[in-house]
Amino acid sequence: MSETAGFSEQDCMFMKRALKLAERGLYTTLPNPAVGCVIVRDSEVIGEGWHHRAGEPHAEVMALRDAGERQKEVRGATAYVTLEPCSHFGRTPPCALGLVNAGISRVVAAMKDPNPLVSGRGFKILEDAGVSVSCGLYENEARELNRAFFHSIVTGMPYVTVKYGMSIDARVALSNGESKWITSEASRHDVQRMRARHQVVLTSANTVVKDDPSLNVRWQELPFEVRELFPADPGFLPLRIIVDAKSVITFNEKIFRCPGPVMVARIGDSDIVRAEKISDSITVLKVPATLDDPSHISFRKLFKYLNAINIRNVMIEAGRGLVSDIVRHGLAHEIVFYIAPKIMGADAVSAFDALGLSSMKDVPELSVSEVSRCGEDVRITCRFKEISCLQE
Amino acid sequence: MSETAGFSEQDCMFMKRALKLAERGLYTTLPNPAVGCVIVRDSEVIGEGWHHRAGEPHAEVMALRDAGERQKEVRGATAYVTLEPCSHFGRTPPCALGLVNAGISRVVAAMKDPNPLVSGRGFKILEDAGVSVSCGLYENEARELNRAFFHSIVTGMPYVTVKYGMSIDARVALSNGESKWITSEASRHDVQRMRARHQVVLTSANTVVKDDPSLNVRWQELPFEVRELFPADPGFLPLRIIVDAKSVITFNEKIFRCPGPVMVARIGDSDIVRAEKISDSITVLKVPATLDDPSHISFRKLFKYLNAINIRNVMIEAGRGLVSDIVRHGLAHEIVFYIAPKIMGADAVSAFDALGLSSMKDVPELSVSEVSRCGEDVRITCRFKEISCLQE
Repeated sequence: MSETAGFSEQDCMFMKRALKLAERGLYTTLPNPAVGCVIVRDSEVIGEGWHHRAGEPHAEVMALRDAGERQKEVRGATAYVTLEPCSHFGRTPPCALGLVNAGISRVVAAMKDPNPLVSGRGFKILEDAGVSVSCGLYENEARELNRAFFHSIVTGMPYVTVKYGMSIDARVALSNGESKWITSEASRHDVQRMRARHQVVLTSANTVVKDDPSLNVRWQELPFEVRELFPADPGFLPLRIIVDAKSVITFNEKIFRCPGPVMVARIGDSDIVRAEKISDSITVLKVPATLDDPSHISFRKLFKYLNAINIRNVMIEAGRGLVSDIVRHGLAHEIVFYIAPKIMGADAVSAFDALGLSSMKDVPELSVSEVSRCGEDVRITCRFKEISCLQE
Repeated sequence: MSETAGFSEQDCMFMKRALKLAERGLYTTLPNPAVGCVIVRDSEVIGEGWHHRAGEPHAEVMALRDAGERQKEVRGATAYVTLEPCSHFGRTPPCALGLVNAGISRVVAAMKDPNPLVSGRGFKILEDAGVSVSCGLYENEARELNRAFFHSIVTGMPYVTVKYGMSIDARVALSNGESKWITSEASRHDVQRMRARHQVVLTSANTVVKDDPSLNVRWQELPFEVRELFPADPGFLPLRIIVDAKSVITFNEKIFRCPGPVMVARIGDSDIVRAEKISDSITVLKVPATLDDPSHISFRKLFKYLNAINIRNVMIEAGRGLVSDIVRHGLAHEIVFYIAPKIMGADAVSAFDALGLSSMKDVPELSVSEVSRCGEDVRITCRFKEISCLQE
């Protein structure tokens, strides 16, 4: 059945608007989901809102406030929300109750709350109060919008995206290690956009020692459409994590001199992850090694720990070794390839390690979720079809 | 200056229509260019035509005939043509004269004839007869449409396009040689479309021995939009050429059993290319070796020979060895990559040979001319920025 079946053209139009509003939150709401809300009465939009960031009001509250400021009567109006209104008393009272109290008579939601512990409870509050509820309009779009959040809630692991810049013959450096610059300036600006949407940017000690990167978000390098959303620099400070199994990091690298927190993940001797704060912005994480190799940290345990501290998404910016590790262990969900139209030759460094495959049937398959031009380069986003959970 | 400056909106609209008509010829007109013509009087299209194939009437004649069949008065009308009308008496009288005799009062052309020997002569015939002439409307589009033809006319060499199917990590086979199927069915159908647009499909003896391909065009496997243009199979029979420097071809391979001509290019002892017909459909070409390697045929001499027999474009479907050779010698103009979202690993066969580069400045750069989805794959068309004419 189509996801718009049973809904009117007006319903579709207003839900699309609510999805657009929700999108504005994508740079700031995590660890919360991005949600949008539109309140409509007699075919007129009388209030709009979206969730800005954790600790601030939810989309429904923002839309009701907007209607109040416009001095509009919300009794009998319809609310379009991109996610089931919440049912719990947290930092804010439940939105389902807020809508009831405001006199909203109909709620159209894009999707149920995916958290099995609360799913359906918001709708129940509404229905018990006599509000008409319908759900499922543009559900795919709504799921897509918050896929990192939902993935984290449902699986207990963050959504992991690998960013990979390479030549069209899939090389990430020349044989002498030179890799500046394979991709174009436009691609590098787009990487700033990706960083701004992530809670964590993770790299290897190897990359830090070799390239001495900042891995921060530089507002002035963000694409125009993002700067338009944030006319002043709100200070995007994703947590930067360096995987340093061999303890080669000296803490004098440039990454420590840029504002924002940094974690250095090293091998610990306990079987749980322990955090030792060594300054306001620097923490050393002691992470268990993998079972089969005492010199490798367990990414699975690191990611579980990150999820426990409310990290929903992780972006990986590293070289072939770390990327191949993550892919081999089935821990990557998405790879964003920035492909430069250059031919570097078979003696340059391959994007991935050897896989020892002897049949096309065994080749890891992804699906292409998005293709676009990025300056002179092409950006291809691929998702893993099945996350193979190989032995660690 | 913009290519539409000085032209009216109507002019733009009719020239776009003429370009659309010209496009229909792309599968059949070579060695002639694809040309479209629209005749307009009082803002009404009164005749349309396009050149179908060499030996048949030109676009202008087709459009005048169409106007005649519709019983429309062409005196005083405007003709929109995608290329300067011809000025020579060939199998047909010159089109410039045809337009004058029909009483056309204005000609709008997208571009001059690029052949320096005749360029401007068609316009001169028109102007001498008092016809108003303007040129340059959508010139880029018109050049793009016939870029193979123009390239061949101007340089004396065919336009060479490499088709390359590979995984996103740029591998063309597993280490054991397995390569069926890396790309999707949709990509393979698109390759049929590419073959149908080429006069020559060139491969290596290696590929013929290993994969035993037909390299023909199978009408029923063409994409729908092409079958729509040709509701019955017109018999696309591109010349198939096998590069067989080591004389391993036995003439019993499948390629010889499919309809259409085949040439086998072997090393000859003369310094010019000699053709020996060994059956109705099979010719052995004796091609000089390159100067630096007596076991390699000179592609430059082979291509010059092909151009001399009216071949305007060559499509290469082969493995890494031949493709790398062509690229290294600066003989490829375009590579169409069909990229499957699969990771085959560094032990699989790389798309290109080693290039021995030690600085990013020396990396061959291409420009992306087109990106699109092709079923599950992504198709990226790249053009070489500068054809480097390295030593043979």
